[in-house]
Amino acid sequence: MTAAQDATAEDVPWGEVAPEAARKLLVAAVEAFAEQGYHATTTRDIAGRAGMSPAALYIHYKTKEELLHRISRIGHDKALEVLSAASGRGGSPGGRLAEAVRSFVRWHAGRHDTARVVQYELDALSEEHRAEIMALRRRSDAVVRGILRDGVESGEFDVPDVSGTTLAVLSLCIDVARWFNVQGRRTPEEVGELYADLVLRMVSARP
Amino acid sequence: MTAAQDATAEDVPWGEVAPEAARKLLVAAVEAFAEQGYHATTTRDIAGRAGMSPAALYIHYKTKEELLHRISRIGHDKALEVLSAASGRGGSPGGRLAEAVRSFVRWHAGRHDTARVVQYELDALSEEHRAEIMALRRRSDAVVRGILRDGVESGEFDVPDVSGTTLAVLSLCIDVARWFNVQGRRTPEEVGELYADLVLRMVSARP
Repeated sequence: MTAAQDATAEDVPWGEVAPEAARKLLVAAVEAFAEQGYHATTTRDIAGRAGMSPAALYIHYKTKEELLHRISRIGHDKALEVLSAASGRGGSPGGRLAEAVRSFVRWHAGRHDTARVVQYELDALSEEHRAEIMALRRRSDAVVRGILRDGVESGEFDVPDVSGTTLAVLSLCIDVARWFNVQGRRTPEEVGELYADLVLRMVSARP
Repeated sequence: MTAAQDATAEDVPWGEVAPEAARKLLVAAVEAFAEQGYHATTTRDIAGRAGMSPAALYIHYKTKEELLHRISRIGHDKALEVLSAASGRGGSPGGRLAEAVRSFVRWHAGRHDTARVVQYELDALSEEHRAEIMALRRRSDAVVRGILRDGVESGEFDVPDVSGTTLAVLSLCIDVARWFNVQGRRTPEEVGELYADLVLRMVSARP
């Protein structure tokens, strides 16, 4: 799909980034970082992949780290949004937890290149940017922890270690980005369903 | 601990690699790959970290890929050994599954630098080496799948999707290498215990 087609920010990868040249550069950066790692990628590689000159890149991003930060920020904002929407939709803790897992898994499977960059290159961020991203991650953790606590309080869940189980649930979903293969046997939706069931078992949810 | 002290292959990192210069180079390569990624690391970097000349490195390893292959091969052999020992120790499927998870998690937490390199740089292996490593991974999968099947057959487990659940169990353990922090609140043993309990819940094990 090209940007010229009728499409929303949801359909076009990184549709939230404007102008078009800045968006193209971000897409190229994700590809390059996912393929060869952040440290082995130069801004020249990224500009080349986007069909632009290094000078054109510097109009939009001052450093390679600025590109990584932008990718990481948008990725983490989206992850938090997906979890918050699932958690805030009302209903039982079990239903909210299942929906949070389904949508978090779908995001990590569907956008696995982005997710890998976002997850594996945290150490390459500047100290200030890393602190900002870690704060977003703590908010995502808090959403899942909140659902687990609600389930324990209502007696629907049996969870002896809420913070450890929160960590495990998020870890299970995040690691989908590592192994998910678009040529594989399972669709993102199927993995989401399987994982929602496994996570409800982890918390011993009673229907 | 130095190699000069009385120590077995278990105590010294990469103690199975000889001579000492080859072992030192492997340790340096794991550090460099974990820090900056495989593609951004040069054989000169690795030799420098080990306090050797590039010429000394070439005596032991012809290419950077040979180092990665050696690391990946030893890491995967060890992972398979750990899982096979847990599976082969006898007892109930629940006990064997818990022990497999405990020991696999301990390995990924305790050797998280090695595990990250082994897990994230598979694409950098040559086609032949990649095929060899994928065969080892299928054998690890088969060990866990075998325990799940035994548990289903004996009626101890309730697992609607054995291959999907195998994938999830291994993924949960592997991702420990990504988030585990030696300064964190949990020891490798504590994470192993927590995860063994969560995995028994996933398979609805009846004691």
